[in-house]
Amino acid sequence: MTGLILASGSAIRARILTAAGIPFEIMRPGVDEDVLKREAAAAGQTIEETASLLADAKALDINAPGRVILGSDQILALGDRAFDKPQSSAEARERLKSLQGREHRLVNAVSIVQNRAVVFRHLETPRLFMRPMTDAEIDAYLDEAGDEILSSVGAYQVEALGSRLFDRIEGDYFAVLGLSLMPVLGYLRREGMLAY
Amino acid sequence: MTGLILASGSAIRARILTAAGIPFEIMRPGVDEDVLKREAAAAGQTIEETASLLADAKALDINAPGRVILGSDQILALGDRAFDKPQSSAEARERLKSLQGREHRLVNAVSIVQNRAVVFRHLETPRLFMRPMTDAEIDAYLDEAGDEILSSVGAYQVEALGSRLFDRIEGDYFAVLGLSLMPVLGYLRREGMLAY
Repeated sequence: MTGLILASGSAIRARILTAAGIPFEIMRPGVDEDVLKREAAAAGQTIEETASLLADAKALDINAPGRVILGSDQILALGDRAFDKPQSSAEARERLKSLQGREHRLVNAVSIVQNRAVVFRHLETPRLFMRPMTDAEIDAYLDEAGDEILSSVGAYQVEALGSRLFDRIEGDYFAVLGLSLMPVLGYLRREGMLAY
Repeated sequence: MTGLILASGSAIRARILTAAGIPFEIMRPGVDEDVLKREAAAAGQTIEETASLLADAKALDINAPGRVILGSDQILALGDRAFDKPQSSAEARERLKSLQGREHRLVNAVSIVQNRAVVFRHLETPRLFMRPMTDAEIDAYLDEAGDEILSSVGAYQVEALGSRLFDRIEGDYFAVLGLSLMPVLGYLRREGMLAY
């Protein structure tokens, strides 16, 4: 297959496609996500609609006629409240204090664009049940996990030490990581871009 | 924490514990799994009971008084039929022909032994929906995946090219890989063996 562009600078999305043996090229979109999120909130959009809108915007921002462009977005939702990536270790600590002992969702939207049009969309919403944790446990985790967790909306990576924060995870694991893989593969296969 | 022994030679089980930051020592059990499975089948045991019995047997086989010993087993179940690891690439091809277009289960049993007694058991049964595949697609997958898939009961590794065989996976991802992690962490935590 030829022609897949990943419209994302996310290391984990690239790792997921690589592990699945899908060739692709990375092109980082230039959209201002904060502005788009504020506009979506002002327009009364749900968290799911906002994630989908951002996945669209990232893919549509890449100028590559004829190519298949994959955009994706992930938003952490605690009830009706949406969270972005924490900016500091202090913010990560507050995030985990909010999440511990409760259920949250990781909304993952995928959009595929060809010739400036969105030709495929998928939304996946895994539910994660973080166990109750004391402040001392949260501090022990943050000390051991280091700054890498700041690249994650929830201040955790379930593929690493983050697994220790949870009682249970329900839903698509790839969507938890940040890219709902199988629907994307299905699209590429239907388009004749995969040998299997 | 000290004292965890993984009673398994499985590379993926070791990787799962390592990723979660759990120190452990590997000791391979000497049980004859084929004999145990035949006995369990003759005694009319279900696939779930057989997996649990094998996880017990592996952990109980390690002689390490005072230590916490983790045994685990995974059996692929297609309806009432159980499958072992394929022994050859020809058998892997037949396996995939049986599984394609159908749902199967990956029964994962975990047993923890201390002082010659089973102190904890957990059973997890994720459901996997393999997409319909032509023989040419199966051959293309087998060619690309190589012999590493023979270490897996289903002739696939979902963390690698195996993701391309599925429409959907339901249930605990760690159990799909081969070790239901969170229940094990819960036990270690209750025993005071983890800082978080």
